Amino acid sequence: MTFFEALDLVGTLAFAISGALTALHKRMDPFGVLIIAFVTAVGGGTLRDVLIGRTPVGWMQDLNYLYIISLGFVLVLIFRGNLHRFKLSMLLSDSIGLGVFTLIGIQKGLDFGMHPFICVALGTMTACFGGVIRDVLCAEIPVIFRKEIYATICIFGGIVFFMLEQGNFPDQLIQLVTSLVIIIVRLLVVKFNWSLPTLDLNVK
Amino acid sequence: MTFFEALDLVGTLAFAISGALTALHKRMDPFGVLIIAFVTAVGGGTLRDVLIGRTPVGWMQDLNYLYIISLGFVLVLIFRGNLHRFKLSMLLSDSIGLGVFTLIGIQKGLDFGMHPFICVALGTMTACFGGVIRDVLCAEIPVIFRKEIYATICIFGGIVFFMLEQGNFPDQLIQLVTSLVIIIVRLLVVKFNWSLPTLDLNVK
Amino acid sequence: MTFFEALDLVGTLAFAISGALTALHKRMDPFGVLIIAFVTAVGGGTLRDVLIGRTPVGWMQDLNYLYIISLGFVLVLIFRGNLHRFKLSMLLSDSIGLGVFTLIGIQKGLDFGMHPFICVALGTMTACFGGVIRDVLCAEIPVIFRKEIYATICIFGGIVFFMLEQGNFPDQLIQLVTSLVIIIVRLLVVKFNWSLPTLDLNVK
Repeated sequence: MTFFEALDLVGTLAFAISGALTALHKRMDPFGVLIIAFVTAVGGGTLRDVLIGRTPVGWMQDLNYLYIISLGFVLVLIFRGNLHRFKLSMLLSDSIGLGVFTLIGIQKGLDFGMHPFICVALGTMTACFGGVIRDVLCAEIPVIFRKEIYATICIFGGIVFFMLEQGNFPDQLIQLVTSLVIIIVRLLVVKFNWSLPTLDLNVK
Repeated sequence: MTFFEALDLVGTLAFAISGALTALHKRMDPFGVLIIAFVTAVGGGTLRDVLIGRTPVGWMQDLNYLYIISLGFVLVLIFRGNLHRFKLSMLLSDSIGLGVFTLIGIQKGLDFGMHPFICVALGTMTACFGGVIRDVLCAEIPVIFRKEIYATICIFGGIVFFMLEQGNFPDQLIQLVTSLVIIIVRLLVVKFNWSLPTLDLNVK
Repeated sequence: MTFFEALDLVGTLAFAISGALTALHKRMDPFGVLIIAFVTAVGGGTLRDVLIGRTPVGWMQDLNYLYIISLGFVLVLIFRGNLHRFKLSMLLSDSIGLGVFTLIGIQKGLDFGMHPFICVALGTMTACFGGVIRDVLCAEIPVIFRKEIYATICIFGGIVFFMLEQGNFPDQLIQLVTSLVIIIVRLLVVKFNWSLPTLDLNVK
């Protein structure tokens, strides 16, 4: 397993845990908690795979995702009264997930010969649309459509990626810088509590 | 048509009728009722086909599903004041659907060379995710995520299937036992009104 | 670009604008408005492509959709206080979209050798299910399932299409008549405020 693959699993675990917590707050039963953990973690990549035609989708071909999500599910069941203690590690892992998932989505787009715009869309989808599916299954308007700056960071990271691609930098450096940019901006956003403005509604 | 295919249509009809009833309770118009009947009946299998890349999806290639769902739609329109009389037949057909759909999903997974864990997931998806899509389209949190023991029975049935596969039993016997287990457990669940506990929410 | 392709973009623009307006009314942030504009415009065709296995889906291979939707997004941001002035052009463009999208869906079905019933379903899906996905993402029961006569017009248009196919008319005439029928019926529906009845709920 490469370092990058390890980070992918760290992000998957963080996303699964955050999904499981959302489901607990919605008072779901264990099956619901497991499924919400699952779609939060791999839903974005699954949607991406379906739309580009990369089937069977990723998690069916690599059982590590299933195992790591199950681990997240069990951890939430055990520690659900004490998870506030791990707030910082959770935020960090979640930010790593955001960066790594965006990169993976961009890379899949490049593999399929897509235009940079589509690659950026696929990166954002991979990182953010698991949360969209989670919110839909919780009968809520997706939080990233309302206030959370989350997708915008991925789009920004994608733009950084393709600007660096213009230069003659090695691939690994581009990936490192892009994911660091996403992770750092994400942490700043949380620290300073930034959010996108709701658009002023003077529609008649 | 084999006996198994006939049972598939029985299950499809039962799922379509239950979907149409849900839509009626949501005060939908005829088009809405038809679509909800449709997704309840074939939505799980459609999702499975999309995720494994078996396209065009099943109901596009075998019009029997379309016909049987339309029949269910018409039956509901005609008998909608008297459907409580058929409660027992409905429960039985619905349970048959649960068993048969689970088996079909497992079998498709095996056809695509999937790991047993993924096959069990595909069986559960085939049997239960039509109802998930129905609930999403009704702007509700899916009932199988909240209290109904439905998916858990399919997972249990899937485990029984792969345990029997270890032995040297003929395929048809394994299928018969698995579906009977699912059907009987489903009936017991309804009779004794079992449900999964909501997880205690002491999250801070 | 053919005349037909130009009409496709007119319809896409109208659908994107109507989606963006819905998102504004839901008080979404700019990212949410853009995504809702996007799924309203191309969601139906995307669902169709996924179900028939035409991947990567259409908008990934023709960036014009992305550009025209972004234009719609910008127009809504600029003119959001004055869009009532364009009510008639909006209605007309939306109706053109309904007609053209239905035809495109039917044609894709024919390209894949589908039965006429499935082609009509694909046409209706292409024209109407972007709005369904929009409503799901807004945590609402889809409006076309409740009262709006929208899908029924597409189904009717599809039936007209296949009745004309029985005769020996040239393809372009069939397409012209079908889309005109859909557009005119749509305008009549809006003018006379027709809607499907909710089914009487005497279910026990």
